[in-house]
Amino acid sequence: MKSGLSFLIEARRCEIAGLQQLALTSALVNATGRLVHALQRERGLSNLYVGSQGRRWQTERTGQITQCEQLQAEVQACFDQLDTQSLQTANGARLFSRIAYVLQGLDALPRLRGRVAAGALSAQQTTAAFVRLINGLLAVVFEAADSAPDPDISRRLVALFNFMQGKEFAGQERATGSGLFASGLADPDEQHHLLDLVESQERCLQVFTDFASETLRAEWQRSQRPEVLAGLERLRRILGTMPAGSALDVNLSQTWFDACTARIDAMKAVEDALAAELLTLCTQRLDTTRRELATLEQVAAEQRDALPDRADFFDSREDPLLALPPSVAAAGGAVQAYGPQVDRSILELVQDQSRRLQHMSDELDTVRASLNERKLIERAKGLLMAHRHLSEEDAHKTLRQMAMNQNRRLVDVADAVLAMADVLSDRPR
Amino acid sequence: MKSGLSFLIEARRCEIAGLQQLALTSALVNATGRLVHALQRERGLSNLYVGSQGRRWQTERTGQITQCEQLQAEVQACFDQLDTQSLQTANGARLFSRIAYVLQGLDALPRLRGRVAAGALSAQQTTAAFVRLINGLLAVVFEAADSAPDPDISRRLVALFNFMQGKEFAGQERATGSGLFASGLADPDEQHHLLDLVESQERCLQVFTDFASETLRAEWQRSQRPEVLAGLERLRRILGTMPAGSALDVNLSQTWFDACTARIDAMKAVEDALAAELLTLCTQRLDTTRRELATLEQVAAEQRDALPDRADFFDSREDPLLALPPSVAAAGGAVQAYGPQVDRSILELVQDQSRRLQHMSDELDTVRASLNERKLIERAKGLLMAHRHLSEEDAHKTLRQMAMNQNRRLVDVADAVLAMADVLSDRPR
Repeated sequence: MKSGLSFLIEARRCEIAGLQQLALTSALVNATGRLVHALQRERGLSNLYVGSQGRRWQTERTGQITQCEQLQAEVQACFDQLDTQSLQTANGARLFSRIAYVLQGLDALPRLRGRVAAGALSAQQTTAAFVRLINGLLAVVFEAADSAPDPDISRRLVALFNFMQGKEFAGQERATGSGLFASGLADPDEQHHLLDLVESQERCLQVFTDFASETLRAEWQRSQRPEVLAGLERLRRILGTMPAGSALDVNLSQTWFDACTARIDAMKAVEDALAAELLTLCTQRLDTTRRELATLEQVAAEQRDALPDRADFFDSREDPLLALPPSVAAAGGAVQAYGPQVDRSILELVQDQSRRLQHMSDELDTVRASLNERKLIERAKGLLMAHRHLSEEDAHKTLRQMAMNQNRRLVDVADAVLAMADVLSDRPR
Repeated sequence: MKSGLSFLIEARRCEIAGLQQLALTSALVNATGRLVHALQRERGLSNLYVGSQGRRWQTERTGQITQCEQLQAEVQACFDQLDTQSLQTANGARLFSRIAYVLQGLDALPRLRGRVAAGALSAQQTTAAFVRLINGLLAVVFEAADSAPDPDISRRLVALFNFMQGKEFAGQERATGSGLFASGLADPDEQHHLLDLVESQERCLQVFTDFASETLRAEWQRSQRPEVLAGLERLRRILGTMPAGSALDVNLSQTWFDACTARIDAMKAVEDALAAELLTLCTQRLDTTRRELATLEQVAAEQRDALPDRADFFDSREDPLLALPPSVAAAGGAVQAYGPQVDRSILELVQDQSRRLQHMSDELDTVRASLNERKLIERAKGLLMAHRHLSEEDAHKTLRQMAMNQNRRLVDVADAVLAMADVLSDRPR
């Protein structure tokens, strides 16, 4: 029969397998981020092109498409390299479904580009199409963030995902503003939408700030060059305050595009640093866990497992089923240092391991709560879209208005909307 | 490059792998339930034996130990049969750690029995030791319930886990009452503890009722024979109301043990039915998913994937990233029947799949919330034990008292206690 020690070893092997998967997923997230960045730029250029009725921006747009095609090939190569065998979990099922979905979008992209070139789409329609595709790519990143087994890594992934999402809102802002300036006319709906995007950006960047490391927070602060921000804020003010129907200076479209692009490119550098930090963390965790596994295997090889244990299960004062997070336990004075040491009893090793996993699981619950909030808001939006035949944007506005009226958080309003739907639809248990 | 369809197929394979693991885990849960049942009986008999100062119950106890040893061998065989390779996930790490922990307890069991036989332990100490071991076994079941990928299956596992936990409280009630009657003396602490156990039982059985199928709820109702309940309630009243220090009728110990045992044995029959239902559900889900996989593979073999899609990603009115649960979506009139059909476009298949997984993930969040409540309460108890040097029982009482005083749910009080601890311990982010 297998001993307790051998299951302890199996538990470590599970952790290592999870970390290896995560390292693979990190590479995928990285490549996806590069493609998103390029598509964001193509979206902005396409809007300028459409806004100028195809008179300008042709060369820039064509060059950008070439770059996108190359990065798309890299992302698809990453998809192909995913070890489908070792990802056979519930999270794997969701990840693969997201990939299947976004591949449909990538397949349809050449046709979309043809329609843009032929002038068959308005600036808004062009933006909406790119938004859908980029959201599909970000959903792949979201599934990766949702599947991390380690709370520290999960925290970094949440920071990265929210940063990417914030950057996407910045990209949508660039596209919307480009469309406005290129059309030469102030349009209240689009102006409103632009201010909304600024606000959504700030919300995402707040979550990033909450979950990022000190280093990356500092890097993000440094990357925000004051002269770029000042120029951007001046143009935001012009776009936000021009009365409906008044003329916008078409010549400012280049200035707007460049200011937004400078900021977004600076964001891309921070995003790359986030991704690099994530990969380093994965590698460190893998090294530590492999060393701990080696120690356990050494204990097993010495067959100390067969010796009578010094500590007795029933006498031990500590019950790991009631394990505490280490900071709390330390305040109570009950916990020693973590990590297996060769001279400790098997029971102590088991207790350490239980405590550590319990702690990780608690921390993960906390980190994932921020992802769950996003899920709730998305579902509530979907519900409003179906029931009240609203566009996504209007559904979002409705939720925000409800939150403001009731002086509640967006997520609480979303929760209330969904609870109401459950009651109304008489959902079977 | 792999197509969207091939990732759709991979997603299905993930689901199948998850269901296969679950079927294995169900067998383990079943065997664990049988061992828990036998240990509960051994605990009751050991208490009677200790209470009678070793003068009675020797034969019954020895016979029960033999049965426990046999069932223990079966459980350990199940542990050995677990496919550690295919369980290499974060949940696997927790499951294996729980197993490693409980194996320490099973190894120490012969020594515990020796001490009981030698009269070295009080009835309370004997009970406490068995409670710890059985909690270790139930923690294995808990991890299994926490890892189910399918909401319907997860719901059944939550019902089963809570039923097992409720049955364990019934077992602790039997042991505590046995100790009291056998000692012949009313002891207010133990009497209080007994009433507490009755209440905990009812809480668990309420969760069982919330999550079980209609069939099993009815079976549970039928299994509660009125004459057994009436006899038990009479003895509960005697145990609960005798003034401190007054004499208890030693001859009632047999009656008490038999009444409790009749009820617990009836519970075991319901538990077995729950386990059987769970296994049937797993098998059905596996069949359905395998059929759906076969359909997808047929589509792939016909290479329809290479044909231009009827529906275009960018034209589709529906965005599966904003997918709704089917009941809600049906109310909005936006969703067709589920499941792949050969004549549908790949995009439609992808949208179906996304919607279905989204729905499953939402449902799972709901079901798991009930498991999270248990985790919160356990952690708050552990915190009180460490900070205020309380026993588990006293920690539980303190929480309950706080809940009663503040007229709040136990889980809300637990949450408040933990939040306070986070503030006090200045926990690093």
